[in-house]
Amino acid sequence: MYRRGLPAAFAAGVAAATLRPLFAQAQTRGAGEGPRVGLVVHPDMILLDLAGPLTVFSLMMASIHLVWKTREEVKTDVGIPVQPTHSFESCPVDLDLLFVPGGLKGTTALMQDHATLDFLADRGARARYVTSVCTGALALGAAGLLRGHRATSHWYVRDLLPLFDATPVAERVVVDRNRITAGGVTAGLDFGLELCARMRGEDYARRVQLLLEYAPHPPFSAGSPESAGTTLTAEVLERRAPALAEARAAAQAAAARLGTSR
Amino acid sequence: MYRRGLPAAFAAGVAAATLRPLFAQAQTRGAGEGPRVGLVVHPDMILLDLAGPLTVFSLMMASIHLVWKTREEVKTDVGIPVQPTHSFESCPVDLDLLFVPGGLKGTTALMQDHATLDFLADRGARARYVTSVCTGALALGAAGLLRGHRATSHWYVRDLLPLFDATPVAERVVVDRNRITAGGVTAGLDFGLELCARMRGEDYARRVQLLLEYAPHPPFSAGSPESAGTTLTAEVLERRAPALAEARAAAQAAAARLGTSR
Repeated sequence: MYRRGLPAAFAAGVAAATLRPLFAQAQTRGAGEGPRVGLVVHPDMILLDLAGPLTVFSLMMASIHLVWKTREEVKTDVGIPVQPTHSFESCPVDLDLLFVPGGLKGTTALMQDHATLDFLADRGARARYVTSVCTGALALGAAGLLRGHRATSHWYVRDLLPLFDATPVAERVVVDRNRITAGGVTAGLDFGLELCARMRGEDYARRVQLLLEYAPHPPFSAGSPESAGTTLTAEVLERRAPALAEARAAAQAAAARLGTSR
Repeated sequence: MYRRGLPAAFAAGVAAATLRPLFAQAQTRGAGEGPRVGLVVHPDMILLDLAGPLTVFSLMMASIHLVWKTREEVKTDVGIPVQPTHSFESCPVDLDLLFVPGGLKGTTALMQDHATLDFLADRGARARYVTSVCTGALALGAAGLLRGHRATSHWYVRDLLPLFDATPVAERVVVDRNRITAGGVTAGLDFGLELCARMRGEDYARRVQLLLEYAPHPPFSAGSPESAGTTLTAEVLERRAPALAEARAAAQAAAARLGTSR
């Protein structure tokens, strides 16, 4: 029904240049003339942490760089591997956006990995935006990039952020100067649209939202500890306790190196 | 803060067997003892259409089958290829769930591909649930699987569903007997939780929602034609007009073969 009865005027010249790339499939990776985006892909990352923002960046016709130490493929939580397009060495020095997706096990390893932390500190010092979704914020923090900033992360590790001299904020997407961090996993969609609006304008972001039909309607209300309640929250924390303890230990060690521990 | 002050009682025996798999990374693909899930991966599919539901299915400890004609990897919209784990031939005959993700170009091709339609018709006739996200519904429809059912799809192709004798419904997730179809791209998250609740129980689905921190908060309200307004909607339709015309032609041809065209 949306195909009928619309004014023909829109057809002429409505943001033609910016709209053309929308859903122009198979032209995305590397083909962008848009912002230069570096996404750190790491072993055990959560594919959905990457896929949400990456979909938005692709629709922004960004120049996508999937970066890791080597170009060997990394495994993800769902068994679909991702092949880096660039190594740390071949990644452009000046990025418009540096992004780290999460995955508790994966980011716990990153916090202990000097090569990765050096890479993040270097590119993060130059990038226009320094960003993360989910536990990716722990890697930014361990690289010293969240010092003196408000930030967020997956709810179950948000209390580790003060170790890195960051102020934890219980919001979906937290913007503090050029640091933009988001909550767990699915927050990557809200994050992606926020970035799209800042880099391409709000109208562009709205078109992307419409294309992705992002009018969320969860069947339940249990997406935060507050809405899920103490019993469900405790169950999840109990099951994740060993991994959370490892993350805390890694964060404390990184903070000690940075000199931000309390 | 959620780590402190919680009753210790939850630790003992709270759904231990069902919670263990949650976020048990690197054990997902093929390792599941849970529902047997067949996900059709096809060239030009939208990775996010797959990644949302797949993340939920993995957390359900489902036995995951990524199925295509051959085991050669298929490309996706964002440039990350996906390798099928099974061919049509090696896919189990009896699936608990058959799922088709979308991607306008990809599903237009599926509607014209007899091998795929035969596979869908065969597995769909036996599967406990027959499902899709986004334009994946067009492939189900072309395989004759939506006859006499209420269904939905990406908003911009929803009006093609009557060609397959399906009744289009403008809802996020539409359940009609064992057919469960969802709207465009991001509807896959709502869909995944709906399926999870049906197959593993509502408490399990709530835990998954909490783990994925699915408390969506889009920065704008433009995820449907109604909320985006006629101008933005018209712009998107204009840019997609050639691909939408191809989809319509393919749907009409498939409907003629099925004998459902009007």
